[in-house]
Formats: sequence, structure tokens, C-alpha cells
Amino acid sequence: MRLHQMQNSGNCYKPRLLAHQLGLSLDLIDVDMLKGETRKPAFLAKNPNGRVPLLELDDGRTLPESNAMLFYLADGTRFLPEDRFARAEALQWMFFEQYSHEPYIAVARFWQSIAPEIPPAQAARFPEWHEKGYAALGVMEGHLATRPFFAAGRYSIADIALYAYTHVAHEGGFSLARFPHVTAWLARVAGEAGHVPMDWRP
Amino acid sequence: MRLHQMQNSGNCYKPRLLAHQLGLSLDLIDVDMLKGETRKPAFLAKNPNGRVPLLELDDGRTLPESNAMLFYLADGTRFLPEDRFARAEALQWMFFEQYSHEPYIAVARFWQSIAPEIPPAQAARFPEWHEKGYAALGVMEGHLATRPFFAAGRYSIADIALYAYTHVAHEGGFSLARFPHVTAWLARVAGEAGHVPMDWRP
Repeated sequence: MRLHQMQNSGNCYKPRLLAHQLGLSLDLIDVDMLKGETRKPAFLAKNPNGRVPLLELDDGRTLPESNAMLFYLADGTRFLPEDRFARAEALQWMFFEQYSHEPYIAVARFWQSIAPEIPPAQAARFPEWHEKGYAALGVMEGHLATRPFFAAGRYSIADIALYAYTHVAHEGGFSLARFPHVTAWLARVAGEAGHVPMDWRP
Repeated sequence: MRLHQMQNSGNCYKPRLLAHQLGLSLDLIDVDMLKGETRKPAFLAKNPNGRVPLLELDDGRTLPESNAMLFYLADGTRFLPEDRFARAEALQWMFFEQYSHEPYIAVARFWQSIAPEIPPAQAARFPEWHEKGYAALGVMEGHLATRPFFAAGRYSIADIALYAYTHVAHEGGFSLARFPHVTAWLARVAGEAGHVPMDWRP
């Protein structure tokens, strides 16, 4: 399998981490969004939505959306709960991540630490990103106050989805000082067998 | 089962429509976001993220996130593809809906047609919402040019997720005139057995 990706993207880190924990080999194909490569015809032919990561199977079929590929890779393994309700709970947190977390925590990090400069229109949005990002961290803190992981009482793809940008939230100007349960959960995730950091490459 | 909901929310329409097509009965509990009811302690105790819809099972367990509840309700039925890759494709379009479609098409509709007035800060965002919403409609148009539905060649929860706000996109100032395949798909979805409109109540 091949992964079209950027190394410092949390969304691209998700399938790299899960593939390593599953013992699957992924060939990494770097696509530089900062040079506009995700919006060029050759890439748009593979993913019309113009985003990485994009998973390409050996038979040529392609799958965009980081959390959809987590589900695909984990299907039938211990990383996806078998119980019907627990599976829906894992997905609940993955939709939460893409709607209530990533658009603020990942986007603040992108403009503060990845992009070469911040246009004024983006700089003006930091207060909103911090307000909504902290709200998402508050929801996570409350959930983790009584549970070790997000779904089914054990490590799953819901944790991978939320770990990707939470563990680098400081790169977007967030402090986790008020979130001790989130901080302890980050350490639990990093201590899971087969864990690799974001800069790891096969 | 009970659904905490707002009748004119596309996200709340999704589980109502699927439940009707599955022959399941849902008790509707109206929660008025415009009166701040989703942020009051009684509701936050049920969903700390302060949003509707919220599905409440007969045993008291709760499930937020409209697309997670679509997956839960459809699991084991013809509305969720059985094939592993097709199931991931359905999820791909559901994550696309929440990340690349709803934040622009649903949000523009909310401020133009649901909220009693538009604050200047929101009014200033319409050009961005229209640009990104039209980009999402363009991705849908390209996909539907050669396929009747979004995943597995047949009607599924991916279609329900995308129908919810696409069929009322005009309420956010969008025109579908340039999207004939999307328009034809909307008619196919509305022609499915058991289809009910957004204002339908049991």
C-alpha cells in the first residue's frame, strides 16, 4: 500500500501510526501542500478533494479521509471495537475530531508552526480557534476523567484520531496545563505497543 | 429510542430519515438551540459537546454525532455496505460531509435562513463559505458523473449524510444550476422507498 502524505501533518500521521502497530508496510509518497502539489492535476486525478493523506491500495483503488482509512485498516483487528455500540462510539469521537477539534487545533498549529507566514486574515482568527479548541479539549478532559481511553475502555482508532493533533497542540499556542486527564491519556497512548512518533518513517 | 433534536437541522434530519426507512420508531424531543437550550446544564449532562442531534437508547446510553448514529442505526442493514472497502468509502464521504461540506453549506444556511439575524462577523464570511461550499459541490458533481450514488453503487448512509444539507443548499444562497449530476442524485434520493422530507414528524 502507498500513502500520499506530508510528514508533519497529523492527519497523515494517523495511518502511519496504525499501520506500524498493525505490522503493515506503507510506502510513503511525499506531497508538498505548501508548494501547491495537492491542487495540481496529477494529484487531483487521484483525490478530487485535493487533500492528503490519500491511501492507495495495491490494486490501485484509493481512499481519502484519514479517519476513513483508520477504519479501513483497523476493520477486523483489535483497534476497532467489535461491539456495535462501541464501534459507533469510536466513530463518534472520530467525527468529533474532524468537526470540533481539528478545524481549530490543527489549523492554529498549521498557521503558527507549519506555514512560512501568517496572512492577517488568518492571524485574526486565532482567538476563535483557541476558544473552540479549548472547548474541544474540555470535552475530552471530562470524558477521560473516568475512562482510560475514548471508546470501549481500551486503545482504539478513536485514540489515534484524537492523539494526532492533541499531542502537538502546543505548536498552535495551546497549553494543556488545565487538562491533566488529557495529558495522562497522551502518555498512555505514547506507551502503547508499536507506538511511533510523528517524525518516524519506515 | 429518543432523538434530542431540532426539526430544521439537517444533521437532525439524517437519523429521522434513516429511522423511517428502517421502520424504527424515534421519539422526538425538541431542543431549541436558538434559545441556548443545547448549552444548558441539563442538556450538557447528556452531551458535553452541547450539540444536537443526540440519540438516546432505551437503556439510557447516548450517542452524539449525526454520522455516528447513521452508522449505528444502519449497522447490519442494507443501508451500510457489507464489503470492507465499500464501508470505508461510505465513511469517507461522511467525513467529507462533516469537514468539507457542512461547515460551509450548512453554516451559510443557518445564518441566512435559520438565525433571526446575521452579525457582521458572520456576514463577512459568506464569500468564503460560498467558495468552499461550491468546491465541495464540485467534488460531488465529479463523483456522481459516473455513479448513481456515493458508495457501493447503491443508496447508503453516505447519501443520507450528504443529502441532508445539499437539498437545502439554496437556503444558504447556493445555486445548483451548474451541478446537473448532483441535482439528478437529489431526485434519486428523494425517490427512495420510505423517503420523508425534512419537515416530516412521526
